[in-house]
Amino acid sequence: MPGIEIKDPVHGNVELTDFEERLADTPDFQRLRKIRQLATANLVYPGANHSRFEHSLGTLHLASRIAEKLPLDKDEAEKLRLYALLHDIGHIAFSHEAERVTTKHLGTHEEIGTKKMLSGEMGEILLERLSRKEITRLGKSAHSEAITSDIGADRMDYLKRDAYYTGVAYGMVDEQRIISKMFLEKGALGVEYGALEASESLLVARFMMFSTVYLHHTVRIASAMLERALSVAIEDGLDPKLLLGKGDGEALALLAQYRRAREYSKSIEERKLYKQAYSLSPPQFKESEIPKLEAELSSLAGCDILIDSPASFVKLSGFLVRTHAGKRQEISKISELVRSLKSAEESRKKALVLAPAQFREKAEKECARFYS
Amino acid sequence: MPGIEIKDPVHGNVELTDFEERLADTPDFQRLRKIRQLATANLVYPGANHSRFEHSLGTLHLASRIAEKLPLDKDEAEKLRLYALLHDIGHIAFSHEAERVTTKHLGTHEEIGTKKMLSGEMGEILLERLSRKEITRLGKSAHSEAITSDIGADRMDYLKRDAYYTGVAYGMVDEQRIISKMFLEKGALGVEYGALEASESLLVARFMMFSTVYLHHTVRIASAMLERALSVAIEDGLDPKLLLGKGDGEALALLAQYRRAREYSKSIEERKLYKQAYSLSPPQFKESEIPKLEAELSSLAGCDILIDSPASFVKLSGFLVRTHAGKRQEISKISELVRSLKSAEESRKKALVLAPAQFREKAEKECARFYS
Amino acid sequence: MPGIEIKDPVHGNVELTDFEERLADTPDFQRLRKIRQLATANLVYPGANHSRFEHSLGTLHLASRIAEKLPLDKDEAEKLRLYALLHDIGHIAFSHEAERVTTKHLGTHEEIGTKKMLSGEMGEILLERLSRKEITRLGKSAHSEAITSDIGADRMDYLKRDAYYTGVAYGMVDEQRIISKMFLEKGALGVEYGALEASESLLVARFMMFSTVYLHHTVRIASAMLERALSVAIEDGLDPKLLLGKGDGEALALLAQYRRAREYSKSIEERKLYKQAYSLSPPQFKESEIPKLEAELSSLAGCDILIDSPASFVKLSGFLVRTHAGKRQEISKISELVRSLKSAEESRKKALVLAPAQFREKAEKECARFYS
Amino acid sequence: MPGIEIKDPVHGNVELTDFEERLADTPDFQRLRKIRQLATANLVYPGANHSRFEHSLGTLHLASRIAEKLPLDKDEAEKLRLYALLHDIGHIAFSHEAERVTTKHLGTHEEIGTKKMLSGEMGEILLERLSRKEITRLGKSAHSEAITSDIGADRMDYLKRDAYYTGVAYGMVDEQRIISKMFLEKGALGVEYGALEASESLLVARFMMFSTVYLHHTVRIASAMLERALSVAIEDGLDPKLLLGKGDGEALALLAQYRRAREYSKSIEERKLYKQAYSLSPPQFKESEIPKLEAELSSLAGCDILIDSPASFVKLSGFLVRTHAGKRQEISKISELVRSLKSAEESRKKALVLAPAQFREKAEKECARFYS
Repeated sequence: MPGIEIKDPVHGNVELTDFEERLADTPDFQRLRKIRQLATANLVYPGANHSRFEHSLGTLHLASRIAEKLPLDKDEAEKLRLYALLHDIGHIAFSHEAERVTTKHLGTHEEIGTKKMLSGEMGEILLERLSRKEITRLGKSAHSEAITSDIGADRMDYLKRDAYYTGVAYGMVDEQRIISKMFLEKGALGVEYGALEASESLLVARFMMFSTVYLHHTVRIASAMLERALSVAIEDGLDPKLLLGKGDGEALALLAQYRRAREYSKSIEERKLYKQAYSLSPPQFKESEIPKLEAELSSLAGCDILIDSPASFVKLSGFLVRTHAGKRQEISKISELVRSLKSAEESRKKALVLAPAQFREKAEKECARFYS
Repeated sequence: MPGIEIKDPVHGNVELTDFEERLADTPDFQRLRKIRQLATANLVYPGANHSRFEHSLGTLHLASRIAEKLPLDKDEAEKLRLYALLHDIGHIAFSHEAERVTTKHLGTHEEIGTKKMLSGEMGEILLERLSRKEITRLGKSAHSEAITSDIGADRMDYLKRDAYYTGVAYGMVDEQRIISKMFLEKGALGVEYGALEASESLLVARFMMFSTVYLHHTVRIASAMLERALSVAIEDGLDPKLLLGKGDGEALALLAQYRRAREYSKSIEERKLYKQAYSLSPPQFKESEIPKLEAELSSLAGCDILIDSPASFVKLSGFLVRTHAGKRQEISKISELVRSLKSAEESRKKALVLAPAQFREKAEKECARFYS
Repeated sequence: MPGIEIKDPVHGNVELTDFEERLADTPDFQRLRKIRQLATANLVYPGANHSRFEHSLGTLHLASRIAEKLPLDKDEAEKLRLYALLHDIGHIAFSHEAERVTTKHLGTHEEIGTKKMLSGEMGEILLERLSRKEITRLGKSAHSEAITSDIGADRMDYLKRDAYYTGVAYGMVDEQRIISKMFLEKGALGVEYGALEASESLLVARFMMFSTVYLHHTVRIASAMLERALSVAIEDGLDPKLLLGKGDGEALALLAQYRRAREYSKSIEERKLYKQAYSLSPPQFKESEIPKLEAELSSLAGCDILIDSPASFVKLSGFLVRTHAGKRQEISKISELVRSLKSAEESRKKALVLAPAQFREKAEKECARFYS
Repeated sequence: MPGIEIKDPVHGNVELTDFEERLADTPDFQRLRKIRQLATANLVYPGANHSRFEHSLGTLHLASRIAEKLPLDKDEAEKLRLYALLHDIGHIAFSHEAERVTTKHLGTHEEIGTKKMLSGEMGEILLERLSRKEITRLGKSAHSEAITSDIGADRMDYLKRDAYYTGVAYGMVDEQRIISKMFLEKGALGVEYGALEASESLLVARFMMFSTVYLHHTVRIASAMLERALSVAIEDGLDPKLLLGKGDGEALALLAQYRRAREYSKSIEERKLYKQAYSLSPPQFKESEIPKLEAELSSLAGCDILIDSPASFVKLSGFLVRTHAGKRQEISKISELVRSLKSAEESRKKALVLAPAQFREKAEKECARFYS
């Protein structure tokens, strides 16, 4: 420090050291301004234009509070802040939505991130203070759980931030309470019993954000169209590496250069989205048979058909809670509330059968017949 | 209407008709300014000085939104608003805390409320528009569920309001969503499936508010002392009727006139509270044996002992949810989350053994020996 | 430190050291819970029930931020925090409203405060760390301006807090900006030029709060009735010293024991307030002749008449702004905006002639005749 | 109605009729998602990614409240809502920043807007209900002042919205108060005296937003670079019409295709901005001589030089205030505060001399010499 202060509507002011500011000023980091945190959710929640740039600053802010609390020593704290700032540097346009398609070509966003941290302007700056090995291990240290855990800085920031920008009532997180009761012991992150309710509340908030925002059915439709566009563009010759330096808008423009992807890309841009024709509950389909099912239903309905089946988002394993008696237990062992989220997720899970708007009725009829 | 607008930090502006304003201007209603919504919670959350006056206005505000949605006809809507405005008029000082002691003398706050609505300035005004029978039935009509249900105007207002004034992160309620999906059919209130998450979220918020505010252990201590003060003052000759016109502060001053109640009253006023010496889980005590247990532990510890055992606050029966297929089911039938609240409440329930601060250690030892 | 954390809706969490907590636990400090920050404003803004207790905690919170910035050394910082915590300890019930009447009997609230700090439980605790001289000088040191200045912790807290609890849109203060640019040099407090807009904005916010809340005409009416009640009660034998240990409600009850004060006291309690019959602009009256004027108008109208003439609240002298060139100037020298507040106040100033509701029309006519 | 509800963090929910929804679903309107409300301000305030799409919905929301209050008849209200929804439809990428350069080629955004409303999908839909003449006159009716006035829906929305997304403390607008006191009489919009403070406060808020956000010096630098990029690209052959269908990101990419514009475009994208080398107060330059001055200073400093001179943003003419006596006066006649904004703006106005970062010092020296 001194460094700079950046105004953030969620946390007030975020302070960066001079060194962190230099990292933030690299083209790789500035590129995060062009990647929306919530990919296509702004098609439903028009305020959701916030970017991974702001989220990265906010994660650093919370990581800093956590480092003070645990406490970490100066060197550990600095590394934790750096990891917080850079934890999303490997995301390509449309983040997770695109990642599902590109991982086999480009690696995960963590792997891409590590490469970015070791090269270019960013690599040069980082190597002034850290060795290559330290950079590679930034996200793998015991402390990094303070960023990545269910009660880590990443989630606490994005839940609050996504709620703020979408305007929904669900993302309230009492991060002050959680951090004030946090401990890191033998490489495991946890909270004292006094933060049990605050932690449960965070997990419920996350569940609600998935139900109403991240997996809102229109968001799922736009995401499914996007993934399909990306798949067919790559099949038709798009080099996935071209995505590495692009923002969301540029990626859409790129997709539009490929014949089969063009229509999807334009539809997303103009919000002329497919409609839900039918919904399937788990026994009605198997994950592995979706491509086959899409083909069959497509042939019956006489139109393009996409089937969107959401990945699970509730994990039962988790962080620790230390009871008044000093015993450490996973939160799912202690909390009925937390366990109920898993069963709620499973019983409500539905795959959506999607068709172009003008074919929706026809597709619905064919699905009904197919499943009768 | 026209009427007046009153500024409210929770809802923006609350509009009262001229008729409602006249009711609000009666001494009985103005008295609600002197009764804190959260009784003793301000001893822990210093911002919690909001009164039943504001809460009553806020409940009217939400009732009005509900009446527009259902929709109710003009006469029904007017009655719903009146009931919302006056639903807490029968509360005496310290509300529920005092009511536990005074019900056998004064009746419930609903019964006191009905009497107040039929007498004095308020009675005169109400009788201009309603018959005695209509007044008596204000809180018993099918529509009154729109105020009193788990998703009624009363709860939606107090959860938001209590969160606002205490500053905790838990009371977020998406009342716009819930109301926009509300229906009243054959005397039963419910919401469409599209408000399932909003409703679950409200019930979780209520659970969290009980855990962290309403039943915060220091709040429970102050409440237990208050109840005891009231009990012994009545035993020593206090006429419970004297409480009917008083506010919280005046009631405390009144209690201080009775020898055995004086010390409790002064301790609450100066926040010199008893301390928790021990906690008991359900098999360790029976509700009916608490007075005997208090006497025994008191004699062992050589000091005054209070045992506070909280009433249950989660009900499984509840409002309806109408599925996409049109089927109506109680929310607890549909929601794992809602069911988990009941078991969470039960497993976490504890009775607190309380002693004066200077006797805490001694009392703890004696309890430990007694229960070993 | 360690100490405790207290939840505050305005600042999040306020931290007290163990020593400060002991001071806050004295009966004198707990009494502040019973004194509303805004005296009678809750009769217009029902949410305005916040007390000098919370405000004192909030002032300490901001003082702490200021002490870090300036920076002050450990001893100075501790004293600044103590002064912030205790700066309102000398306020009696209804604060400034009552003080106007009682100063000649009891001294100012600063003088009462110093006495309280030197006696009783609070005195004993303070004297463990400070000498009598240091206690006496707590509010007179160069640093104390960080509490009392126009941009001091006291004002920044109360503007934000009053806006929060009343719900009005005007009290926004960018305290982070102001504090981050604050300096204290040769005993004078100021801000760098970069906080000019933030400071102007604070002064405008304060102007707006006076116009719409503190001097709302209904608030002025209730205050005028209260002052009159206090004056006549003292004339009729009330010992002003009795007010020293009381809260607002207790003071009202005390006033009701004096024949001439009783009616006023009851009217305030039941919100049956006098009405404005007429308004006078500066040339129409002299401050010193108000008692005579009240008597004359009262005799003409045949009813009790009160005249309320507000004290000036805008001061042109003020804190310093340091320009980029390093020159220090009073803000009113630099800012047209700040200067305009003075003339706006003067041109809008009105004395109100008040009469009981049933006499309003008669009084209006007589005033009109008198001034024609 | 029925129509749809769209979640908006600023106003809660915004309701669109079916007809309005169809307009919002046209490609021309969807394009507004790609135009940031604050052009380059997100380079300083990272949260400022909100778009003209959301702002248009918010303006419609407030217009609706105004239409209810005035009141307007059904036909007028519908037109006012349509104008509110479409008032920014003619903005090209980077809105006002670009408009300064393109007006001579494309017309103002109002003129472009009218053309868009008369053609394409949007034209077809609008012509179902309105005649060509009515469409052309949407923004020119007496009522349209309810959108465009200083206290119109446009400004009230953008001040609140810009404050929300940047996180600054200045944009608070009491729109409920202003609207509740609004009148439209003989084609002139005004407020009753009771909204004087609310109106002054809005104008002060706007002044503060200009000082700290819209004309933040870094925002001015980015804007100046953008304007220059656009100018030289057009000189080098860019057809301004190509901008009509583009968003901000696409426009930057387009500029990068022109040699002289490329460097500017890339610098904005990567936030490698020019630095302020000097500042000029009004007598030091004439608006008309800026190009000449740029050339001279550029030749002296041996680098590219831009001079940014801000347009005036405070207008003294304005809306009316109706005094208690019924007299209507322009607010600047009544309010010292409002008048002071004009002089404050003038005295603080500075032109900035900008140079590439590595030439800043050299440029500063040359400017100092030139002006000595």
